[in-house]
Amino acid sequence: MRCITLTTDFGIEDGYAGLLKGVIWNIVPEAQIADLSHQIAPQDIIGGALVLARSAPYFPPGTVHVGVVDPGVGTKRRSIAAKIGEHFFVGPDNGLFSLLAEKVERSAHQKVEVYELNQPQTWLINVSASFHGRDIFSPTAAHIANGVPLHELGTPIDDAVRISLPLPIPSDNGWRGQVIHIDHFGNVATNITAGHLKTFGNPFNTDTLHIHFGETSLRHLLRSFGEGSKGQIIALMDSSGYLSLCVINGNAAERLHANLGDSIEVSTP
Amino acid sequence: MRCITLTTDFGIEDGYAGLLKGVIWNIVPEAQIADLSHQIAPQDIIGGALVLARSAPYFPPGTVHVGVVDPGVGTKRRSIAAKIGEHFFVGPDNGLFSLLAEKVERSAHQKVEVYELNQPQTWLINVSASFHGRDIFSPTAAHIANGVPLHELGTPIDDAVRISLPLPIPSDNGWRGQVIHIDHFGNVATNITAGHLKTFGNPFNTDTLHIHFGETSLRHLLRSFGEGSKGQIIALMDSSGYLSLCVINGNAAERLHANLGDSIEVSTP
Amino acid sequence: MRCITLTTDFGIEDGYAGLLKGVIWNIVPEAQIADLSHQIAPQDIIGGALVLARSAPYFPPGTVHVGVVDPGVGTKRRSIAAKIGEHFFVGPDNGLFSLLAEKVERSAHQKVEVYELNQPQTWLINVSASFHGRDIFSPTAAHIANGVPLHELGTPIDDAVRISLPLPIPSDNGWRGQVIHIDHFGNVATNITAGHLKTFGNPFNTDTLHIHFGETSLRHLLRSFGEGSKGQIIALMDSSGYLSLCVINGNAAERLHANLGDSIEVSTP
Repeated sequence: MRCITLTTDFGIEDGYAGLLKGVIWNIVPEAQIADLSHQIAPQDIIGGALVLARSAPYFPPGTVHVGVVDPGVGTKRRSIAAKIGEHFFVGPDNGLFSLLAEKVERSAHQKVEVYELNQPQTWLINVSASFHGRDIFSPTAAHIANGVPLHELGTPIDDAVRISLPLPIPSDNGWRGQVIHIDHFGNVATNITAGHLKTFGNPFNTDTLHIHFGETSLRHLLRSFGEGSKGQIIALMDSSGYLSLCVINGNAAERLHANLGDSIEVSTP
Repeated sequence: MRCITLTTDFGIEDGYAGLLKGVIWNIVPEAQIADLSHQIAPQDIIGGALVLARSAPYFPPGTVHVGVVDPGVGTKRRSIAAKIGEHFFVGPDNGLFSLLAEKVERSAHQKVEVYELNQPQTWLINVSASFHGRDIFSPTAAHIANGVPLHELGTPIDDAVRISLPLPIPSDNGWRGQVIHIDHFGNVATNITAGHLKTFGNPFNTDTLHIHFGETSLRHLLRSFGEGSKGQIIALMDSSGYLSLCVINGNAAERLHANLGDSIEVSTP
Repeated sequence: MRCITLTTDFGIEDGYAGLLKGVIWNIVPEAQIADLSHQIAPQDIIGGALVLARSAPYFPPGTVHVGVVDPGVGTKRRSIAAKIGEHFFVGPDNGLFSLLAEKVERSAHQKVEVYELNQPQTWLINVSASFHGRDIFSPTAAHIANGVPLHELGTPIDDAVRISLPLPIPSDNGWRGQVIHIDHFGNVATNITAGHLKTFGNPFNTDTLHIHFGETSLRHLLRSFGEGSKGQIIALMDSSGYLSLCVINGNAAERLHANLGDSIEVSTP
């Protein structure tokens, strides 16, 4: 099996994303290719990194993930391929894969290897100045899926660009975090994880922790939507492990007028 | 061949829909996976059911269709797998598959079997409270594609939730129906089918039947767009078998200010 | 390997595009199918032709490209299959494939063969009046992917419909062209190609050529985004070979209020 995924800010109207599959199938005809998202906001590296961190781990070991959110295309930014745990990643050296790399490194037995791509004979013959997803990253991903080792495609580097999500900061009685993602349903994910809640008592008990977001205050977490009622504003740990504000069967971002970067506070009562 | 389709309200921006393919390929690496739609309106079970009823029958026998429009995730609603005719369906027990089930049952020789999924060892190890598409339905679909019989995945039930489209009601001289779907082109599909028109004469002859929708009146059906002219408001039987209002090379929903549920009447002159 | 691509104006919400894969997999179960775009504006044949011309050549020889932008469905317009270079195309006879055909013919050794589809036994049993993508084009594409020769699917014709992009017209000191495409990023592509710039000096040198678009004047081309700075309005040859106006890490169409058909002029200073 040779799985490849695609994550870009190309949109789906122009054929840019679709043609990457043609480039890949020329090199590895049997590749299974999945679109993760082509709707990353233009040049939104953090947004792309979050999609990759959320989705890539669910693919089989050996999967090659192409990420193209590339505001630096045509500049001197490097092109890279990386092995992160059991998965491969190909794209610009701008931190797009670093949220996942950080997560994997924190686990004991997995390491991150990064190579600068510098073997043009493995790329398309004509490399344009503005479409490296087509000309460099897709053929590279296909070669990796075919079993070509990374050291034949580039040179190891140890200074790949890293980006980080903002971390919650300690406040008087808890943590002050912020909104890092608003999804299709309007669920409002923050950078507060289970780890930040450990110092509180059982967060599902009323008045063990208080959550403040703008004018809205909540007095505990729910375990699932089923513990609330339709239309209720609730907080729970989402399926990616982040504290999220939701409206049951509704759109929390609209209801709470939430935006990326908005402040949220969890505290003891 | 192992075909699987995906129909959800997940949207295409967050990676939620894409990662389902990773879960599936871990279990059945050669699966052919098609996206039917990830643009069902959030929690719109009827909308999802219509897409499935329209699209699923065109796939090969044995195809497994995953449907995730799941306002009840995290409540006590059951998870089900069903065999409907020659196809399999996996998702929440909320009626998402029941329009198709009803259609198949009406034909003489096909039956519907439904099983409640209750074998957690066939799911992902960690089942979240809010993403059963990833944690339960996708692995279950993959096992079915691999040939695992439904009775190894759950227990037969005979009280699966059913939903129905509203039916046209008889009026003085014909039928009063309603708009059940507005598609990407703005074509306005109603719940009136060829069966309802049988009592009229040849509906393609002028003045055999009259169609009233808001301020608009039409005096017969067309067989095809070619019988009208560009910009004309027409009525025809659409490719799914429903009486539809269309504007040739235009958008009927905009032109007629049509909305879901709007009333339409067909009557003898 | 049997690759098939899909380019339509069906949108992605209704399941219309997804079910084409079911039709194909019934006939050629192992087909690799890529979506190029389902977001062509309704009935925008030129828009579809541009996506196909841009994307199709990146697929392996023998790939079958289904194109369905079909304002004439249900009229007497013919259905066709074509061999253009090493690729196959199936769809309505309305010029959708002709930009690519023209490009291929201009190169010396490739020819274009077009067949009118007229063998209904190779289509779905029930052919609707409004959905030939499902009923005629997809099964035909699948048969071609299976190796059925075009002459078994139809009859050669030599008068297939051709469309052309508007060509730049000579002006006093250069060329007057127009905007032919605005992409997802807001990049503004014109019909001016490298050939039109040959009569100027090195276009990357300042004041060798001037570019006028509305109120905006530029004094040379850039080779890549890296030669400019964030937010700058620049001109470059895009990855499809067209002179394009871009804003580095921004949206040129919004910034310049550009629309399809807008005039652009390149001239000697």
